[in-house]
Amino acid sequence: MVRSIDVSDLVERTRAGDRRAVARLISFVENDAPQLREITAALVPLSGRAHVIGLTGSPGVGKSTSTSALVTGFRARGQRVGVIAVDPSSPFSGGALLGDRVRMQEHSGDDGVFIRSMASRGHLGGLAAATAATLRVLDAAGCDIVLIETVGVGQAEVDIASLADTTLVLLAPGMGDGIQAAKAGILEIADIFVVNKADRDGAEQTTRDLRHMQAHNPRARTAGWRPPIVKTIASRKEGLDRLIEAIDSHQVWMTESGELPRRRCDRAAAEIEAIALSQVSRRFAHLHGDVALATAAENVVAGATDPYSAADRLVAALSG
Amino acid sequence: MVRSIDVSDLVERTRAGDRRAVARLISFVENDAPQLREITAALVPLSGRAHVIGLTGSPGVGKSTSTSALVTGFRARGQRVGVIAVDPSSPFSGGALLGDRVRMQEHSGDDGVFIRSMASRGHLGGLAAATAATLRVLDAAGCDIVLIETVGVGQAEVDIASLADTTLVLLAPGMGDGIQAAKAGILEIADIFVVNKADRDGAEQTTRDLRHMQAHNPRARTAGWRPPIVKTIASRKEGLDRLIEAIDSHQVWMTESGELPRRRCDRAAAEIEAIALSQVSRRFAHLHGDVALATAAENVVAGATDPYSAADRLVAALSG
Repeated sequence: MVRSIDVSDLVERTRAGDRRAVARLISFVENDAPQLREITAALVPLSGRAHVIGLTGSPGVGKSTSTSALVTGFRARGQRVGVIAVDPSSPFSGGALLGDRVRMQEHSGDDGVFIRSMASRGHLGGLAAATAATLRVLDAAGCDIVLIETVGVGQAEVDIASLADTTLVLLAPGMGDGIQAAKAGILEIADIFVVNKADRDGAEQTTRDLRHMQAHNPRARTAGWRPPIVKTIASRKEGLDRLIEAIDSHQVWMTESGELPRRRCDRAAAEIEAIALSQVSRRFAHLHGDVALATAAENVVAGATDPYSAADRLVAALSG
Repeated sequence: MVRSIDVSDLVERTRAGDRRAVARLISFVENDAPQLREITAALVPLSGRAHVIGLTGSPGVGKSTSTSALVTGFRARGQRVGVIAVDPSSPFSGGALLGDRVRMQEHSGDDGVFIRSMASRGHLGGLAAATAATLRVLDAAGCDIVLIETVGVGQAEVDIASLADTTLVLLAPGMGDGIQAAKAGILEIADIFVVNKADRDGAEQTTRDLRHMQAHNPRARTAGWRPPIVKTIASRKEGLDRLIEAIDSHQVWMTESGELPRRRCDRAAAEIEAIALSQVSRRFAHLHGDVALATAAENVVAGATDPYSAADRLVAALSG
């Protein structure tokens, strides 16, 4: 049961960094609460200050460890840090397998760190929308930095990476050769490459492969920012200072080049469109019931109609 | 330039297994040709016969090698085989890094094998829709088996996995421990687990981890089908007979349990909804121009409006 809430009070307390208010607001926006619009409208003017850092890479490259090490680094500078650990692992159960308690235990007692794990919900950008909403809460709560950690390199991860001002792509030696790395589609989303577990065999080769791919990727060359390659051993916090320097440099470049407002406008446009499409999707259900879509689907399977004609009827009913 | 085509002639030749017609039809459906609806309407009654097998797993587990080995196995039984290699790697350039020539060279001279590589296009299910359309062409062309190979385990891959009648999840020893495998969200999409590179250290541990996770995952227990774990060394075609047996068993179970028509209706419903939403997305662009969405986005970034109000205006304009 959703209790009635005083949104403006909750937002005011969030703005002041009240941890319980932050947690409660995130729960509301995650669960698509009836007050979501009101909350969002109240948060929009308070947000836009945080530097948003995305971390992505294949399972096993050390994303959680790197995230934790970065938190330590930013905290040492006195910055307030939010972490959103996006776990698209369990699309059908809707629950993250690793809870907040398992992740990042070393920061559990630190009042300047806000950690939230999110699991996948539905499809069509639902996770990206929920992540964007959570990001906005942490931003309004005064986080100087928000780290968004995503597993994998699929389209959902790319959508989430587009939320970030600075995207770190993590690799580790021995996780596949150069072609595999290229297949993973990382070249064009990375602002900074991190070769983690740099003490392992093959770290030099991974770095060379990356340099080679950068040299032969025209898009990377023309973007005005050449993604640096930073080697780290996150478990020992080695290379973290250089990584934070690279992040700072990217932030400066983003601001000076005008890329920051461009990315943020793209982000807002994507969010608006995703919200609009999810409204439309709900309307399909509301106007017709699941039964109507199911009937159309049965007809397609039986060869009696085709999916385009069925889709036409759904869209036509929107205006009806 | 799109040349005018005689759709019914092309479909007729596709039905007869004419390779050039198949390739041409796939190009049309991939490129969202103006004739896409007409082609789809003509193909729907001809399709639904192929057994669709999805293969997914992290980069480096040996998906391409396993796909190739399976093709050999099905060909040895005289079955016609289609392969769709989905490569969501390059979302921004729209081009697959590995072309058809690099993949699966050993089947290049075989008239009973159709191979197509696909790269990511746009977002919001565009790739899944294009994959579904390609699948339908191969199905209508008389393929007994269509293998869909996807990289990674993100939401896009899950959407594509939902196209399959039988989903194989590939793992390899040393690609991360049990928790990492669980994070990858594979338990709930797998109909069959394949532990490839089974001659490597850790294969037994990977198998034990999977069994342990299966035992503790209530959803897997209640589904009526306990996904078998098959060990293979795809590069030497070892274990392939057992894998094909497991695929056959799953097909029999799918038919006898009524799960096959259920999954195919779900697949059709998802396709209808994706087409409808992409029509709506195009309408947003058509009704307002990119400029209008961009203006709304700037207002959100400036804190002057919120994304929900902006989305409301987009959706309201649909009925206008």
